[in-house]
Amino acid sequence: MSFDYAAHVRPGLPPALPRWNGFPRYNFVGGHSDAERIPIADLVAAASAVIGREGRKLATYGLDSGPQGYRPLRAFVVKALAARTGIACTADDVLITSGSLQALDLVNALFLSPGDTVVLEASSYGGALTRLQRVGAKYVGVALDGEGMRMDALAAALDGLKGRGVKPKFIYTIPTVQNPTGTVMSLERRRELLRLAAAHDIAVFEDDCYADLLWDGARPPAIRALDTSGRVIYCGSFSKTVSPALRLGYVVAEWPVLSRMLALKSDGGSGALEQMILAEYAPAHFEAHVAGLTRTLEDKCRTMLQALEEQFGAAAEFSPPKGGIFVWVTLPPEVDTSRLNQAALAEGVAINPGAEWTAEPAAGRNRLRLCFGNATKSQIREGVARLAEICHREFGVPVRGANVTR
Amino acid sequence: MSFDYAAHVRPGLPPALPRWNGFPRYNFVGGHSDAERIPIADLVAAASAVIGREGRKLATYGLDSGPQGYRPLRAFVVKALAARTGIACTADDVLITSGSLQALDLVNALFLSPGDTVVLEASSYGGALTRLQRVGAKYVGVALDGEGMRMDALAAALDGLKGRGVKPKFIYTIPTVQNPTGTVMSLERRRELLRLAAAHDIAVFEDDCYADLLWDGARPPAIRALDTSGRVIYCGSFSKTVSPALRLGYVVAEWPVLSRMLALKSDGGSGALEQMILAEYAPAHFEAHVAGLTRTLEDKCRTMLQALEEQFGAAAEFSPPKGGIFVWVTLPPEVDTSRLNQAALAEGVAINPGAEWTAEPAAGRNRLRLCFGNATKSQIREGVARLAEICHREFGVPVRGANVTR
Repeated sequence: MSFDYAAHVRPGLPPALPRWNGFPRYNFVGGHSDAERIPIADLVAAASAVIGREGRKLATYGLDSGPQGYRPLRAFVVKALAARTGIACTADDVLITSGSLQALDLVNALFLSPGDTVVLEASSYGGALTRLQRVGAKYVGVALDGEGMRMDALAAALDGLKGRGVKPKFIYTIPTVQNPTGTVMSLERRRELLRLAAAHDIAVFEDDCYADLLWDGARPPAIRALDTSGRVIYCGSFSKTVSPALRLGYVVAEWPVLSRMLALKSDGGSGALEQMILAEYAPAHFEAHVAGLTRTLEDKCRTMLQALEEQFGAAAEFSPPKGGIFVWVTLPPEVDTSRLNQAALAEGVAINPGAEWTAEPAAGRNRLRLCFGNATKSQIREGVARLAEICHREFGVPVRGANVTR
Repeated sequence: MSFDYAAHVRPGLPPALPRWNGFPRYNFVGGHSDAERIPIADLVAAASAVIGREGRKLATYGLDSGPQGYRPLRAFVVKALAARTGIACTADDVLITSGSLQALDLVNALFLSPGDTVVLEASSYGGALTRLQRVGAKYVGVALDGEGMRMDALAAALDGLKGRGVKPKFIYTIPTVQNPTGTVMSLERRRELLRLAAAHDIAVFEDDCYADLLWDGARPPAIRALDTSGRVIYCGSFSKTVSPALRLGYVVAEWPVLSRMLALKSDGGSGALEQMILAEYAPAHFEAHVAGLTRTLEDKCRTMLQALEEQFGAAAEFSPPKGGIFVWVTLPPEVDTSRLNQAALAEGVAINPGAEWTAEPAAGRNRLRLCFGNATKSQIREGVARLAEICHREFGVPVRGANVTR
């Protein structure tokens, strides 16, 4: 091979990826789910039924449902949202996306030119931050506490931007099982967020992709359900509830949003077999499946928290998440979790360094996100012990834990 | 709803889409396939087998195969390419994409900054032209004849650009069942194209997504198979052979290309159920299925050509395509096919106006692409008759046809 691509590709590309060499042994990163909880038999039955009955629709782009996605799946989304989030909508208000990542891309493409500003939680989803960076947008982080984004901090951030003549394009929030903090925004704050967004005349992008995984099923209504102005664009996902490999999410928004998004979604539609099989599976099985999965995840979460206490003792600070698949951990200030991640990866332990999950990387330097969705309970115990050993060796902490066995 | 999105979205968005109201009655646009030829029973069997056996892999992004896609599907692509195109590669050289449209997006994102130039066939895939417009790239069309892109014209185009100090980023070609002309580039021209690309030190992007649908299975080797420099990026698709709604294509390229594309493919992977079911289905059934589908398409093509002759007589010029699902038709110069399309749509007949399928829109003004993949034979006959009536009414041609019944 003699052609020199480095001399031909465009400037400003993200760094090339290395070859994939399999998952690390102790895999505490990524939104993977519990392998034992994949509803294999029900998916097989759904696949047989729907392909057998409606397979001819595979001959056309869009399954004879148009670019918004397979109509039975949109109908299920409508029902599930009404039951879980209080959102009242019809199938015409729903756009099926190839995962909620595509929803993020579409919202960004709808609003953002380079230099535009987004307001978001000070600790937020790393993939969202990376996407904003790639489109050349700036973002301003708003402090969080146990009830999610703080409204005094949001008011101050919006006023501060206004004072500098900056009008942000939207507020991006993950109010229900916040990523990475695992908090749930209170009803009062949801209302206050809408009040502030109205006062500043900006849109809200509500990312609810972990919201189905609450330990305690009760949750406040979605921000979109509380809004009457049409400013809230809502997205959800089946990645965390049914399967992350199955690339299906959805957007609920007004037609001025969806009609423009459809013009940007030039992908020939989202995957047909995924949509058909999920639409066939979900009406009969989704509720019970999610209830069972949530019990499994809560159990693993308990194992993770216990292992952190045992292995890190007072060196690790964290609040038990209200649901989801991750814990957000703060270590003593001398620990640089990006360096910890490098050392840990070499020994088969993968973590998300906090700097990639915070609007101000410095604020996340000694923090990390640990996912417990995919690892088994024994992998969680072993992996956290291994991580504590490595952290001790590299940074001198934890000095000692309650029941440290090393 | 009071929030005014028009005042908030970014400038330069493509026009919003209208509500989808179902397919037109005589649907001669889009890459739809034959509904009777969808291999329903075999897909059901494949789905049951693979989900039952490997369903646990759905718990992880990437199906335990990494970001290049489900390994058994990549293995099938390797075998099929070796048998059909002469390309020798391994699964490490293959990237599964969400349709070949994503392959186009990734190649564009890899090479193109606004203002960059691409060289392509003077009549080319409309979706590729739109994509280039959206990233702000320019393109130069190279004349075609019955053997595909003319190499004298390519040499002149490259020399002309060089003379103006413009170095194009790549040559985009659809050499095997060219879209829209249905031609196949000869072996000599493939070699000459590589020689010219080497002389000008540019990459080649070979789009082979219709190549499996040749009436006469014999075809020249892929351009990539003839190259030793590594400059050829190859893409193919299962949309035209198995199902367009199933969003699966693939790229074959050198690691410096794939490793950079993987960094740009930030979608969490292509659809898992699609990949698993196709990979299970294809090894046993793909060859026989494509052979049967091709017979059906050739039969429909014959019906379409006959209807054109009967209804348009000498007013319609076209060469029988070598395969695929479309005919490229030239009407007398007084016919504006964009206007014809508007008039026809109102009466349930959809066509692709030539201006959207030509590098110089003026050159396609009196041309149109007609797809015969999805319509039944009676729909083809009726729809072409209807189209001729409308064309006669709007433009005075065809004046008369051999067996015109109106």
